[in-house]
Amino acid sequence: MTGPAGELKIIAVGDELLEGRTADTNSGRIQRALGGHALRCALIQVVPDDEEAIGAALDRTVPGDLVFMSGGLGSTPDDLTRDVLARWADVPLDQDPGVRAQLEERWRQRGVATSPGIERQCEVPRGLAAVPNPVGSAPGLVGRLSGRMFVLLPGVPPELVGLLPAVIARLEQEGALPAPRATLVRRTAQYPELKLVQRCAAAREAYPRLGWSWWLSDWGVDVRVSAGAGDEGQLEAAGSMLDAEFGRLVYARDGADLPTTVVTLATARGRSLAVAESCTGGLVGGALTGVAGASACFRGGIIAYADQAKRDQLGVPAAVLQADGAVSEASVRAMAAGCRERLGADLAVSVSGISGPGGGSEAKPVGTTWIGLASPSGTFAQCLRFPGDRARNRLLAVAAALDALRRALEDGAADSPWRHGDTWWRS
Amino acid sequence: MTGPAGELKIIAVGDELLEGRTADTNSGRIQRALGGHALRCALIQVVPDDEEAIGAALDRTVPGDLVFMSGGLGSTPDDLTRDVLARWADVPLDQDPGVRAQLEERWRQRGVATSPGIERQCEVPRGLAAVPNPVGSAPGLVGRLSGRMFVLLPGVPPELVGLLPAVIARLEQEGALPAPRATLVRRTAQYPELKLVQRCAAAREAYPRLGWSWWLSDWGVDVRVSAGAGDEGQLEAAGSMLDAEFGRLVYARDGADLPTTVVTLATARGRSLAVAESCTGGLVGGALTGVAGASACFRGGIIAYADQAKRDQLGVPAAVLQADGAVSEASVRAMAAGCRERLGADLAVSVSGISGPGGGSEAKPVGTTWIGLASPSGTFAQCLRFPGDRARNRLLAVAAALDALRRALEDGAADSPWRHGDTWWRS
Repeated sequence: MTGPAGELKIIAVGDELLEGRTADTNSGRIQRALGGHALRCALIQVVPDDEEAIGAALDRTVPGDLVFMSGGLGSTPDDLTRDVLARWADVPLDQDPGVRAQLEERWRQRGVATSPGIERQCEVPRGLAAVPNPVGSAPGLVGRLSGRMFVLLPGVPPELVGLLPAVIARLEQEGALPAPRATLVRRTAQYPELKLVQRCAAAREAYPRLGWSWWLSDWGVDVRVSAGAGDEGQLEAAGSMLDAEFGRLVYARDGADLPTTVVTLATARGRSLAVAESCTGGLVGGALTGVAGASACFRGGIIAYADQAKRDQLGVPAAVLQADGAVSEASVRAMAAGCRERLGADLAVSVSGISGPGGGSEAKPVGTTWIGLASPSGTFAQCLRFPGDRARNRLLAVAAALDALRRALEDGAADSPWRHGDTWWRS
Repeated sequence: MTGPAGELKIIAVGDELLEGRTADTNSGRIQRALGGHALRCALIQVVPDDEEAIGAALDRTVPGDLVFMSGGLGSTPDDLTRDVLARWADVPLDQDPGVRAQLEERWRQRGVATSPGIERQCEVPRGLAAVPNPVGSAPGLVGRLSGRMFVLLPGVPPELVGLLPAVIARLEQEGALPAPRATLVRRTAQYPELKLVQRCAAAREAYPRLGWSWWLSDWGVDVRVSAGAGDEGQLEAAGSMLDAEFGRLVYARDGADLPTTVVTLATARGRSLAVAESCTGGLVGGALTGVAGASACFRGGIIAYADQAKRDQLGVPAAVLQADGAVSEASVRAMAAGCRERLGADLAVSVSGISGPGGGSEAKPVGTTWIGLASPSGTFAQCLRFPGDRARNRLLAVAAALDALRRALEDGAADSPWRHGDTWWRS
């Protein structure tokens, strides 16, 4: 792991990362962008805006390393990365006329005067080349110094993300990256990581040379499989084994997240959607409308948090609320049916549960959550029991509601989306 | 910063932190927990589950340091932290009967057989003492080795969070922490960091010995001020200066977040709330219902994403939608009024905006967002113009809607919550 040379090391620079107010998420962005190259990071160092600390971090790299540095590239005196690196590598800082021209053009387009910090932003340690920034002012800087390949990126996440593709293309040109690995992904909703890993065992035994990993998402667990040179042909067969094993658990093979998958399916099939939410309070609608283009299929919904809203806005009978309670099969069926009718949608999903910390009972402990679905074929319902705290139970409920819509859209909504019995949290 | 001794250093151990699938958020939790002691971290190292890498990270500490290590304390063979630390410090691993008794009791309570990994979980490097874990199985380990004060914590965030108070109490007993600093916080919504920092200038000049910092939250910016020994008396006066400067921008002085502040205010004043959401798709309701106890004031709402839903569910006149459009003053006034009436709430807030990336025009560019408020006194509306992408514009709209409710609740809702003109994004 920590071999003599040739490792990826990341140095994240910034006081805010060492005061607990901001987590270093840029290192993950760099790792994910390099993931296709099967480059695994050997060390992340998070250091303050301090010359000695940045220098010490550089001392912990060795010739042959690929070193990404994020942060400290702005125009103020506490942006030290360029200066410290130049001193550390014993090279001068040059003014880069190309960077200057680009910055001036950027200011001109925005109709503002050139920033007084422009001199500093045009400085480039000799040996590095500027990579223009498509979304911000600070360029990326790439090149070899002291036997290491360096990549300097701004710390502002959108600017860093915007620069990564161009920077990686530059590293590929320079031969500084291993060949990209072919990969496949299977995204699953609502299924616990440990079980999913177990169910990959046969495929892993059949294809031991492939690289396997499991990533948690807001919606469930992703399986990622990658192949080195010469093994690419095994990926398709391994994917088929996974598809046979997981069946309808897989919601995407193209990297799309669960809300995007639902919106894409509904739009392609010309189905309109609506939501009726109690315990999730609007988060299912919030997730669907996070997808650009959701208006092609999403009509809207009812947030029926109080029982009175369930009666008045969704037509849930008072007798149901009294006899069965708001968290019950009859309640979510009536919520979904009322929502579908009132919003004029083809499919409506409903959620009513006890997220906690209060409200639980022996019969309906915290985590008990009913999901309902109304389609042209009728109404369906399923009880799930989530194991988390309030925030986690609500997130699991959102994923369960979205996955019910996804399954209903995939199979034409003629029958219960839960009829295959492969939903994990069934109570 | 990287002085000779006495620094806080954090070592986060775990392969998952070096593959881009999980960010190291534990270091921030440790920093925030120690924040009151004004201990600033000098270095965070993130290393894989690898003996050599963990040992190299330990080599980068010096006598006098306070070293927190998170992760690698479980019962499986790749949990190496205890073993590597013991070898590095040249001390034996002892079986701790107290830890064993506690683990066995925990298994007994859950009615399961003792885990086969229990032997490893009872091992403690000689010189460290176990701190019982109130929420999980792995204890925290605290003590001096090789001149450093070490704290070992499990990597699972809820277990780490559960252990931090007890661990910090132990460090205080051992005299391993500077005296806690008195602090005050002022939380503001919707106000950009740079402006907020500028407006603290007079108070900073008046009280230069206080420590000042600004933290971004989902809702706006927090100002934190801390006082060292002897300066505590300055905090109240500095707080008064800030209050005079910021006025209604401050939504909390007690650390509560914005949704919690709204729910607490509404409940205390006996006011019921409802939401009518277009571009935010349910996220305002989602934020309010994230607060345990929201049912005391929150009735529910209407997600009116399609124009038809605005007409049918909220009674927005078709003529308004045709003449003014869905993103307009007349539309959000009608949405709020219709929502207030139909949900039977005292106050209703409405949101309709163009989040992007599509849908913008010259007259209504991406980011244009109308917020409406209906109260017993009438309806009010304000146009804001957010500068972000879809996700950021939606988050800013949620904060703006919640802050409108907060201001209306604070002043009795007799007049516009925007009448003071101190909202930042006004168009």
